[in-house]
Amino acid sequence: MSDYAQAAARNLAALRAQKPLIHNITNFVVMNYTANALLAMGASPVMAHAPDEVEEMVGWAGALVLNIGTLTEQWIDSMLKAGRAAAARRLPVVLDPVGAGATAFRTRAAGRIIADVRPAVIRGNASEVLSLRDASSRTQGVDALHAVDDAAHSAGLLARELDSTLAITGPVDLVTDGSRVARVANGHPLMAHVTGTGCTATAAIGAFLAVDPDPFSAAATALAYFGLAGEVAGRSASAPGSFMIGMLDALYTISPEQLREGCKIAMSNED
Amino acid sequence: MSDYAQAAARNLAALRAQKPLIHNITNFVVMNYTANALLAMGASPVMAHAPDEVEEMVGWAGALVLNIGTLTEQWIDSMLKAGRAAAARRLPVVLDPVGAGATAFRTRAAGRIIADVRPAVIRGNASEVLSLRDASSRTQGVDALHAVDDAAHSAGLLARELDSTLAITGPVDLVTDGSRVARVANGHPLMAHVTGTGCTATAAIGAFLAVDPDPFSAAATALAYFGLAGEVAGRSASAPGSFMIGMLDALYTISPEQLREGCKIAMSNED
Amino acid sequence: MSDYAQAAARNLAALRAQKPLIHNITNFVVMNYTANALLAMGASPVMAHAPDEVEEMVGWAGALVLNIGTLTEQWIDSMLKAGRAAAARRLPVVLDPVGAGATAFRTRAAGRIIADVRPAVIRGNASEVLSLRDASSRTQGVDALHAVDDAAHSAGLLARELDSTLAITGPVDLVTDGSRVARVANGHPLMAHVTGTGCTATAAIGAFLAVDPDPFSAAATALAYFGLAGEVAGRSASAPGSFMIGMLDALYTISPEQLREGCKIAMSNED
Repeated sequence: MSDYAQAAARNLAALRAQKPLIHNITNFVVMNYTANALLAMGASPVMAHAPDEVEEMVGWAGALVLNIGTLTEQWIDSMLKAGRAAAARRLPVVLDPVGAGATAFRTRAAGRIIADVRPAVIRGNASEVLSLRDASSRTQGVDALHAVDDAAHSAGLLARELDSTLAITGPVDLVTDGSRVARVANGHPLMAHVTGTGCTATAAIGAFLAVDPDPFSAAATALAYFGLAGEVAGRSASAPGSFMIGMLDALYTISPEQLREGCKIAMSNED
Repeated sequence: MSDYAQAAARNLAALRAQKPLIHNITNFVVMNYTANALLAMGASPVMAHAPDEVEEMVGWAGALVLNIGTLTEQWIDSMLKAGRAAAARRLPVVLDPVGAGATAFRTRAAGRIIADVRPAVIRGNASEVLSLRDASSRTQGVDALHAVDDAAHSAGLLARELDSTLAITGPVDLVTDGSRVARVANGHPLMAHVTGTGCTATAAIGAFLAVDPDPFSAAATALAYFGLAGEVAGRSASAPGSFMIGMLDALYTISPEQLREGCKIAMSNED
Repeated sequence: MSDYAQAAARNLAALRAQKPLIHNITNFVVMNYTANALLAMGASPVMAHAPDEVEEMVGWAGALVLNIGTLTEQWIDSMLKAGRAAAARRLPVVLDPVGAGATAFRTRAAGRIIADVRPAVIRGNASEVLSLRDASSRTQGVDALHAVDDAAHSAGLLARELDSTLAITGPVDLVTDGSRVARVANGHPLMAHVTGTGCTATAAIGAFLAVDPDPFSAAATALAYFGLAGEVAGRSASAPGSFMIGMLDALYTISPEQLREGCKIAMSNED
């Protein structure tokens, strides 16, 4: 049993004991599901995006989740404001660059947030995270990456360049902080048929960041927990409606011990 | 069997017969769940917040629900506009001061809406409602409250000060209009693990306000009905995902007779 | 078996094979449910409304869904911008004029979108679609309609006037492009007790427009598919919470063959 399986169990137990407030500035599509998932995990979600209050709200939080899914210019301003307040308090931030690479507006927004807020973790799919190389390259030059073939190596370079843990989710998730690399094999194919599972995985990372000072460990263990909830839901649901409800149930019922047993985190030595 | 158990049954039957339009200006997190809950109860929900149309939309409604959950300055303006139009038509308004006390922005917003709109009912948890003493005290002086220990007595004073029925929800709900005090013991612990159950209880009060001219009776009976739906859902669900779906089912299937039998409203004489 | 039953099966198979991106600018209430329904069908939903990106996002899409359910002036601008970009690319657009007729703001907004964007399909209930006669009459004169009694004939005239396929949903849906008329008898009474089933039917039409070049056929077959999902859900659910989840499951599990067999599209010759 890996150290990270122990850490996963510890983090889940701590989350349920401490019930940290997780401040989300996220997209309209997933607000309800994300809030319910955070509650099911044991965290206390709050959604607040008004520029008049985000700094004050951050003051109550154990972590900040920024998600650019249904972005407008005003929401970017709120995210930057909240993110700077979090940085000033050394509060961990996780960024979900939804759709980065799909439009220039989103790629630029993700780049601005990264430059200003320095999130502890960035979670996206491969194409979203890959697009950050270009966003980043305009201001910081990571051109070397373009010549790199191996995904994990490439992600490791980008992680160091951005000084952030990257969590690239897919059939097997890849987590790297530039020196450590973990692959998380938990999950279920129906997760791709429910909207906002990626965004909710990001929120789970936010919750674990509130109780684990190591962003790499927080990200890997949160993804294992979230993926395990998919596996549990998949045992009784075979279609996406009942599966999405089953995932909320599983996030609530999975015990730290079950997570320790079911956790599929494998470390590899890339460097 | 109390008079309020009879009133609860009567209100639910009237709601299903009349299907009043309930105009909601509410937060992004709960819009879908609230709309589904209102439909399940038998009401006709509409969500509309554009300053260009809120006054006209209020004209179709049987009650107005204002909820400051994901507030911005523009949404306050819409709430004030809709609320004044409702007041002019003597249409009942229920306010949910979500997060009042957590940020100055929300506390002030709640205070402005109360001062301008004079809602018939205000529903929140104890800390949200308590924070209105301070919002109120700035303009109207209810400092005497600070010396008062007993929650029900304190709430009664505040209710008279604000000229509103207060519905303070928790394990047992407290409803007071300053002269009458009811305690509603319906509910289920899983309600705290689903986002927006408080907001949806507020919407249920809105629906009952459309068919019951007495705000105190409307609030107490709506909370009994909503809590009973939690109890019914809790009989077959043991985790929050299936519980939240079970609550929608229960709101639909509970009959006026079942509500009369299951209603746990106890009156006390505080004054 | 009608040609349209074959077309329905063909469209569903094509949707699952091609997984077209469906760009939605829709209301806050239904965003999550609509996105989940589109995913369950086999499409790839994206929600994006920022004026800075809607034109670029439309470039990735197979169809555009515009829905005025929680409209503000800024959102109309985004819809017009996206709609014009779609028109320029000959991308099919479906409009849901939610609440047209209820407020002047919504009736006008629907009229502006129709005039500017020329949607391939407009889906609403009878009173929403009927209200477009007046919106239209201000600029284009369809006063003759007011003298017409028969709903199908009247809808046919309006369809020709607006140069659009109209899909008027109710217990039996009516679809007309001004020359052809179809009645779709699929559906279940509980659909009226779930919020956003109309909006989601509109999204289903959007998905079918991405794979069927004939808007009349796309609309009729999408409504048959969506209604059949209601029938399937209604076999195991008897209350709206479990029914809405069952519909997502059914959208995912219904095969093209089942749709061909269960499809209830009847053609009539109105002209």
